[in-house]
Amino acid sequence: MDAQPPNPAHPAGAAPPLGAPPAFDAAFRARLGDLFAWRRDVRHFLARPLPEGTVAALVARAASAPSVGLSQPWRFARVKDTGRRAAVRASFARCNAQALAAQALAAQTGERAALYARLKLAGLDEAPEHLAVFVEPDPETGHGLGRATMPETVAYSAVMAIHTLWLAAAAEGIGVGWVSILDPAEITAALEVPAHWRLVAYLCLGYPAAPADTPELERAGWERRLPPADLLFER
Amino acid sequence: MDAQPPNPAHPAGAAPPLGAPPAFDAAFRARLGDLFAWRRDVRHFLARPLPEGTVAALVARAASAPSVGLSQPWRFARVKDTGRRAAVRASFARCNAQALAAQALAAQTGERAALYARLKLAGLDEAPEHLAVFVEPDPETGHGLGRATMPETVAYSAVMAIHTLWLAAAAEGIGVGWVSILDPAEITAALEVPAHWRLVAYLCLGYPAAPADTPELERAGWERRLPPADLLFER
Repeated sequence: MDAQPPNPAHPAGAAPPLGAPPAFDAAFRARLGDLFAWRRDVRHFLARPLPEGTVAALVARAASAPSVGLSQPWRFARVKDTGRRAAVRASFARCNAQALAAQALAAQTGERAALYARLKLAGLDEAPEHLAVFVEPDPETGHGLGRATMPETVAYSAVMAIHTLWLAAAAEGIGVGWVSILDPAEITAALEVPAHWRLVAYLCLGYPAAPADTPELERAGWERRLPPADLLFER
Repeated sequence: MDAQPPNPAHPAGAAPPLGAPPAFDAAFRARLGDLFAWRRDVRHFLARPLPEGTVAALVARAASAPSVGLSQPWRFARVKDTGRRAAVRASFARCNAQALAAQALAAQTGERAALYARLKLAGLDEAPEHLAVFVEPDPETGHGLGRATMPETVAYSAVMAIHTLWLAAAAEGIGVGWVSILDPAEITAALEVPAHWRLVAYLCLGYPAAPADTPELERAGWERRLPPADLLFER
């Protein structure tokens, strides 16, 4: 944001007392805006591996995300086994072929299906790291607080962990691609995780081949950005 | 993260070419870590209003979040009407009383229910701004891309918009509290939004009365942080 509202906890020029929150300044906010802009869904990766320990460090960052009732229901599986990766790629290939067929059926003309066929929707072949993210849907942690009427907030907590990881990765120059064109049951089985865990996301991680501040789907003409003001209503 | 992996797009010391991503440095990453740590769920607000335009600016930032197929399915309702706010508070009071009764039934001893009763779980009375966030579950935008097998990714997109708003607010010294102890149908009706929209979150916004880097539920002894390494598995 451009405006800098006064923060009563931090009068301008005063040093924050011990234990006080850091006063984030305009320069930091500008860089944070850059981070939001350059945090893209990456599907084109360099083969170059990530430094040892990167995935664990990113997962630790992800764990600072908010969670309903402090339930921390996120579970991460780093996928290195080539057989398991092949099963994931096969699930993607099947689901993507079905999606292409559906696009062809739904379209008035063949143009959109042809465009769909040209899109690269996952970097599963090149990305040096694969990270599957699951949710424990009924965690003991949190003691049920906050999720009785909206149980979906448990999965939402895992989503915020993913988004935290995504931003932390982007700040390291590391790209993340969220693959959702998968059969969750196939992934859960291929990775031999507890059957009651639910797949939230399958992430590809690596150095982006071509960093960008515009979504690939926008550059390819698939969809445009909506004016945010059109999505804000007064009640 | 402490480690700074080499970014092949940005050799140290070289100026980024035009159109290249900004090279986020270690100082920025440290501040981003502070932001993640101080982005708390706030339930204690000062009555002081936010500057005019703040909510719209935060919503604009939220709209830079990732969304499945670039579907941008998030919808924001800024709630100012006192009657509608009262209906939301009444829904919270009902749902919270039911949750307290359930805690009392489930507990082996009365201790946890007594602790639950002492927790302040929402700042609905004091927060100067209320923002309800909905998802359009079947948006035309995005043309269905990426959500055929995992339709929940539409709601997940709205969750990432909320998390983006939350971080952007924290960088302005503004607190956000996510209220989920609500009956979604009651909120949708009270706010007279399209009946097929689904409530994702009801947010309270304002200046925090007591900023903290530790979750309130942790300080109150409700739940503890899990070691992130325990939630990372190799496959």
